[in-house]
Amino acid sequence: MRKKAVVLLSGGLDSSTILAYAKNKNFDLYALSFFYGQRHQFELEASKKIAQQFGVIQHKTINIDLRAFGGSALTAEIEVPKGRTEAEMDNEIPITYVPARNTIFLSFALAFAEVIQSEDIFIGVNAVDYSGYPDCRPEYIKAYQTMANMATKTGVEGTTNLTIHTPLIDLKKSEIIKMGLDFGVDYAITSTCYDPNEKGLPCGICDSCVLRLKGFSELGIEDPAEYQ
Amino acid sequence: MRKKAVVLLSGGLDSSTILAYAKNKNFDLYALSFFYGQRHQFELEASKKIAQQFGVIQHKTINIDLRAFGGSALTAEIEVPKGRTEAEMDNEIPITYVPARNTIFLSFALAFAEVIQSEDIFIGVNAVDYSGYPDCRPEYIKAYQTMANMATKTGVEGTTNLTIHTPLIDLKKSEIIKMGLDFGVDYAITSTCYDPNEKGLPCGICDSCVLRLKGFSELGIEDPAEYQ
Repeated sequence: MRKKAVVLLSGGLDSSTILAYAKNKNFDLYALSFFYGQRHQFELEASKKIAQQFGVIQHKTINIDLRAFGGSALTAEIEVPKGRTEAEMDNEIPITYVPARNTIFLSFALAFAEVIQSEDIFIGVNAVDYSGYPDCRPEYIKAYQTMANMATKTGVEGTTNLTIHTPLIDLKKSEIIKMGLDFGVDYAITSTCYDPNEKGLPCGICDSCVLRLKGFSELGIEDPAEYQ
Repeated sequence: MRKKAVVLLSGGLDSSTILAYAKNKNFDLYALSFFYGQRHQFELEASKKIAQQFGVIQHKTINIDLRAFGGSALTAEIEVPKGRTEAEMDNEIPITYVPARNTIFLSFALAFAEVIQSEDIFIGVNAVDYSGYPDCRPEYIKAYQTMANMATKTGVEGTTNLTIHTPLIDLKKSEIIKMGLDFGVDYAITSTCYDPNEKGLPCGICDSCVLRLKGFSELGIEDPAEYQ
């Protein structure tokens, strides 16, 4: 029997790459996206296209209201930083960090996995380019996996062997893009920008765009996405 | 400075008791409730009354769509079991179990705690009466706490000392009720039933009602709630 993978899919570059990765590992794909009060929905539109492209069996989008707590430029009325160098990004946890976001996303993935009887959750966290995010670190993921193995029905029965897969965790952005291109990801579709314009076109100067453009540049390939 | 507590408040007997417990421990109270696709909203109405009674500073109710996954009598069109004895309840994980519910609830509590800078989360789990629920066990709570201490900004800085408080975990229902009465909980307000009628009156025969009525009976006190 083919194994089922729950893949957290934002529609951005990283999560699109892990969807392709799980497909290549012969998993049946169950994608999970969130509308969590982001300031724009272009990511979600991208996630639908990517899911379709890779023949996802189920794609669920969950509404959760992270705006209720605030505390991030991605969910509150705080300005997204622009034009920063990589050195400046490394200095501190960015304002675009959303409190406990990965913990919340993984918890919904765990519920989905329990219902469809999957033991494999894929998340596109990265400890290189997002070194400032606490919930992208390997020790965090390991602790989450330990907890998750006790959290479900099969956890009581002692038969759970749930794995949180993080195939991108140690990769540079250019290596992630290389992997995705090998697996057939169309990066023209993926949406990465923290602050796109009203047509969904990326700004090219927020932290996320800067890292993406640098990744393509290192590979000597032009980013197929259209910018403002 | 007074410490802040995030209290998961369903409006049921157990969570109302822990709200009173946290108040008694001199915490400033921040209550968190969920509308998660339950079949009725009487619990949420009860949670508002209880929060008001105990002078909660903020009470947030988050909409999350657990119906998207199904898999439980509390969120799907599956019949709630009635008239079971305690021995029958002990036999298996009940159909009223909601996949990964406490993991999801605690994850939102963690986000709330991070934003208000609280290090104390209170949850009314109980390993005695709900022995069948995987996410009510002490080893699960301990694993969650370990993970949570790595999940937030202060976790990166190594200054987090977050505690998941479970003051009811080893108590019988009668002992929980005794504690709540000592702290002034008005159990006439709390809503416990899995399947109340259209006026919100409890059925008296679902697992949750059976355990509650037995608790009051053991104390030799009449349950102040009105039944169908």
